Amino acid sequence: MSLLEALNWRYAVKKMNGQPVDQNKVDQIIEATRLAPTSSGLQPFRVIEVTNPELKKTLLAHSFNQAQVVDCSHLLVFAAWDNYTEDRINDVFTLTHQERGTPPESTADYQKMLISNYVPRPESVNFEHAARQAYIGFGMAVAQAALLKVDATPMEGFDNAKYDEVLGLNEIGLKSVTILPIGTRDESGDWLVNLKKVRTPLSEFLIEKK
Amino acid sequence: MSLLEALNWRYAVKKMNGQPVDQNKVDQIIEATRLAPTSSGLQPFRVIEVTNPELKKTLLAHSFNQAQVVDCSHLLVFAAWDNYTEDRINDVFTLTHQERGTPPESTADYQKMLISNYVPRPESVNFEHAARQAYIGFGMAVAQAALLKVDATPMEGFDNAKYDEVLGLNEIGLKSVTILPIGTRDESGDWLVNLKKVRTPLSEFLIEKK
Repeated sequence: MSLLEALNWRYAVKKMNGQPVDQNKVDQIIEATRLAPTSSGLQPFRVIEVTNPELKKTLLAHSFNQAQVVDCSHLLVFAAWDNYTEDRINDVFTLTHQERGTPPESTADYQKMLISNYVPRPESVNFEHAARQAYIGFGMAVAQAALLKVDATPMEGFDNAKYDEVLGLNEIGLKSVTILPIGTRDESGDWLVNLKKVRTPLSEFLIEKK
Repeated sequence: MSLLEALNWRYAVKKMNGQPVDQNKVDQIIEATRLAPTSSGLQPFRVIEVTNPELKKTLLAHSFNQAQVVDCSHLLVFAAWDNYTEDRINDVFTLTHQERGTPPESTADYQKMLISNYVPRPESVNFEHAARQAYIGFGMAVAQAALLKVDATPMEGFDNAKYDEVLGLNEIGLKSVTILPIGTRDESGDWLVNLKKVRTPLSEFLIEKK
């Protein structure tokens, strides 16, 4: 299936039936997310994979009772760094040099530039920048799920602060930004399944400068 | 090629050779972007496809002289709505009902809720929310390009305000957020092409809650 076929097949599933999704498929969704490009390669976000039934129930109460949170097989929570710090930036480059066998000095000026640009900025500005990167990974996860014909529901409608609390994200410097329940559609209970996908017409979406 | 193979194949091309990319492939990249999911289906972003050589040259001066902006075949500029307005929100639902043949009343409460949540918020908050949605589409564009074995360079390093001015985006309520030059790698001049792709290890990237 091509990506365009997959994106036309997928939709934001409103009702899931609780069937488990193969872990191997979920792993591929996570891997696509991990491979997503991010600004300067910093990957300022993490994915929390929730399968614990009690935890899902607790999160449901902070998800405007949208039942996909419990009826899904795996609940993926995308969480961005709360801030850029010198350590976080340097750690990425340390890893890069380890993996590539390149000399640390080769990126010293670039690291200094990033640190002097990012670290003095307000935390909220840095978090927003990190959140945007998380959304690139979120897009990859949606794409990979659709290509595997796995149902998923991109969702922003949840109480971020409560999720952070329940999942212990504050302590590890993360803030939830979006969630992706992964599961199996229950066609009989889903009001959206038979409705036509609607998108902004190409003539309006695309602006050509020839 | 699977998406994982494609994402492992791709990299942020540092040097392009000026060769044109088939318009049909670029069209597929745009279409994947247009099909990306967004919050409440509002699609609060647009893509500007720049092929005009003079315009690319003008933009180069506002891109820290990163030559992919002129050496690419097509320069895609992702631009988010500068704000959510009542008209913009209502227009999306008008289109949806036209396409689906559904009664406008069926989403009246939902529209009211969105309008009362979004419109009173500061413009900057709404723009950031719209920008995040644009990054989902940006991720789809990167995925589609890689699947077609088309080179591309995800870039944030440009002068957004100058881009907005040069492309006339202010007048149409858009603000540039990121760019994607699409073209063909020039391996002989690209310092990154032979370096190993490095990503945060899975053990650190993924947090499991079983």
